[in-house]
Amino acid sequence: MRVLGIDPGLRNMGWGIIDVSGGRIAHVANGICHSVGEDLARRLCSLHAQLTEVVERFAPEAAAVEHTFVNKDAAGTLKLGQARGIALLVPAQAGLEVGEYAPNAVKKTVVGVGHAAKQQVEHMVRLHLPGIVIAGPDAADALAVAICHSHHVQSAGRLQAALAKAAS
Amino acid sequence: MRVLGIDPGLRNMGWGIIDVSGGRIAHVANGICHSVGEDLARRLCSLHAQLTEVVERFAPEAAAVEHTFVNKDAAGTLKLGQARGIALLVPAQAGLEVGEYAPNAVKKTVVGVGHAAKQQVEHMVRLHLPGIVIAGPDAADALAVAICHSHHVQSAGRLQAALAKAAS
Repeated sequence: MRVLGIDPGLRNMGWGIIDVSGGRIAHVANGICHSVGEDLARRLCSLHAQLTEVVERFAPEAAAVEHTFVNKDAAGTLKLGQARGIALLVPAQAGLEVGEYAPNAVKKTVVGVGHAAKQQVEHMVRLHLPGIVIAGPDAADALAVAICHSHHVQSAGRLQAALAKAAS
Repeated sequence: MRVLGIDPGLRNMGWGIIDVSGGRIAHVANGICHSVGEDLARRLCSLHAQLTEVVERFAPEAAAVEHTFVNKDAAGTLKLGQARGIALLVPAQAGLEVGEYAPNAVKKTVVGVGHAAKQQVEHMVRLHLPGIVIAGPDAADALAVAICHSHHVQSAGRLQAALAKAAS
């Protein structure tokens, strides 16, 4: 299964794609969409176009978006929400189901603890996917989201299989 | 000039379209997009599809979105931001410039004061556009945004004309 992870942001939208097969993960690609344009609407439009290109090019079968931390700055939260709307829209337009994970859930899966530092997340992503070139911190976060989603989807699959076996 | 106004919201996204010609405005259409779907991504996708249909059907030449009040509820602000991202994206994808107006600016233009009640806005919209059927409060707000934008665009046009005359 090919999984797309997205770390939403208005200025920098990180994305990372991995292939998951029988408990093993492999890196496919990662990158950062930078919003261009003078006004907000143009910037969102450019993010939408870039992310759509990523989805069309790599054809993921599942997607997940980080449910980014809501800080106390309302204007910043509104901006982030606008970018996050695009991050959720693009995979949904491609017919994918989109998972959402809080940053602590992502860290807990990838690092083992919920309150890990940003550098530790990147370190563990490199450990999971040895030898890869990461486009930047936002792309590392996006790969972590993809790893988290693949883990949860596989756990759910194992649970369903166990339940089916128990019921038969 | 045909102007689309949008009052963004995740549950109900109001829209209103007016024609502006030589200081006169006429109602074209108004309505509300309701988001359908179980998860957030599907709901945003449904809003995008409905709003895109409105833009394709009525072919506005300008658009404006209310820069909605940011309240102290961060989760609510994030939700609103996600819907607002779609409201800004759709007209930008159609190549339109998208104006943004704070609710107080809209009220000041349509009612004359910045702190008017919601009912007063609807009352003045009906006065500006006699005899129309309004789909609901969100559609009334959207028409108010369209009226506000047409007013500002015309004022800017008159200013430019005056400046060009003074310079010649």
